[in-house]
Amino acid sequence: MEFREAIMRRYATKRFDGRQIPQDKIEELLEIVRWAPSGLNIQPWRIKVVSNAGLKEELSAAAWDEPQIKSCSHLLVFCADTDYAGLVAKLLPAMKEAGVPEKVCEIVKGIAEEMGHMPPASWLTYAKCQVHLAVSYAILGAKDLGFDSCPMTHFEPDEFARILEIPANLVPTLLCPVGYAADQAPPKWRYPKEDLLLP
Amino acid sequence: MEFREAIMRRYATKRFDGRQIPQDKIEELLEIVRWAPSGLNIQPWRIKVVSNAGLKEELSAAAWDEPQIKSCSHLLVFCADTDYAGLVAKLLPAMKEAGVPEKVCEIVKGIAEEMGHMPPASWLTYAKCQVHLAVSYAILGAKDLGFDSCPMTHFEPDEFARILEIPANLVPTLLCPVGYAADQAPPKWRYPKEDLLLP
Repeated sequence: MEFREAIMRRYATKRFDGRQIPQDKIEELLEIVRWAPSGLNIQPWRIKVVSNAGLKEELSAAAWDEPQIKSCSHLLVFCADTDYAGLVAKLLPAMKEAGVPEKVCEIVKGIAEEMGHMPPASWLTYAKCQVHLAVSYAILGAKDLGFDSCPMTHFEPDEFARILEIPANLVPTLLCPVGYAADQAPPKWRYPKEDLLLP
Repeated sequence: MEFREAIMRRYATKRFDGRQIPQDKIEELLEIVRWAPSGLNIQPWRIKVVSNAGLKEELSAAAWDEPQIKSCSHLLVFCADTDYAGLVAKLLPAMKEAGVPEKVCEIVKGIAEEMGHMPPASWLTYAKCQVHLAVSYAILGAKDLGFDSCPMTHFEPDEFARILEIPANLVPTLLCPVGYAADQAPPKWRYPKEDLLLP
């Protein structure tokens, strides 16, 4: 699908029809998300994919019973990784292995060391922001692949972490249920360009 | 351009060739960004577009003299809006005017009231996260329109706010210089899918 068609056709789907998305399409979606950008290419995220009906039922109670959770095909739980030191320790050898020029590796190493001085709360904010880049790939990717999605922040992260046995270094940040829409796209609106721009 | 071509061809450009992007293309880019999604569709962002060479020179010093700032055609400074009450007061009438069904307006009103209880720092994190959704539209939109971009967080927000006379409720969050690349895309790599997913 054309990029601009994807952005205009995507909308936050409020109810899915319960049909399952074929596994190969889910794999394609995850492949799209895998290419999301992040600062330093540090990829500070992990995704838990939930398709089990019982588990979705349990999670639904921790997301104000919003109908997307139970009616979706797959629920992608995007988590931000708080383990900055671990991420950096993994990043630098991976860059070298990927053939990134030595000079670039050195620059990234310097910035990573500088960023290492930020307080943990600042890093968490940073990582959560990066997760939003990945989710934007997920919602556009879903539309590109012929199905629908709904980014959601209205849920209890601690409960999600408990139910899904998410490792302690990961913070559930954003939900992205995907499936086939059972609703209609509402009228699409945004503020005019004058409101978007500073004079 | 196909969505998947845009995501695979986009890369963080380190140096631009200084050529100006025609104004109509910049307008098209801003139109793409305008359609970015946000929680509640609250659009908690404003963009300052800088093309003046002297101003870019001055800003460069507040961004570690990274070469993108001076060599780009246009610098988009994405700001997060901290004025939650103001955003909500603007949102609800705008939804009605856009023809959003009354029932949906009521739901949004309820969530907005609930979110109003969050501390200002939490709202700022939330707004910064939303800005990243808008920037993802900018970087993919730039590639779709035939030019390049580089999302950057390595700059001094207070200095940017001072130089650009950004209103006090707005926090410069992410830079997105756009222009024509003078470098080559480096080898594109990401962690394998096993590292992306939680088991």
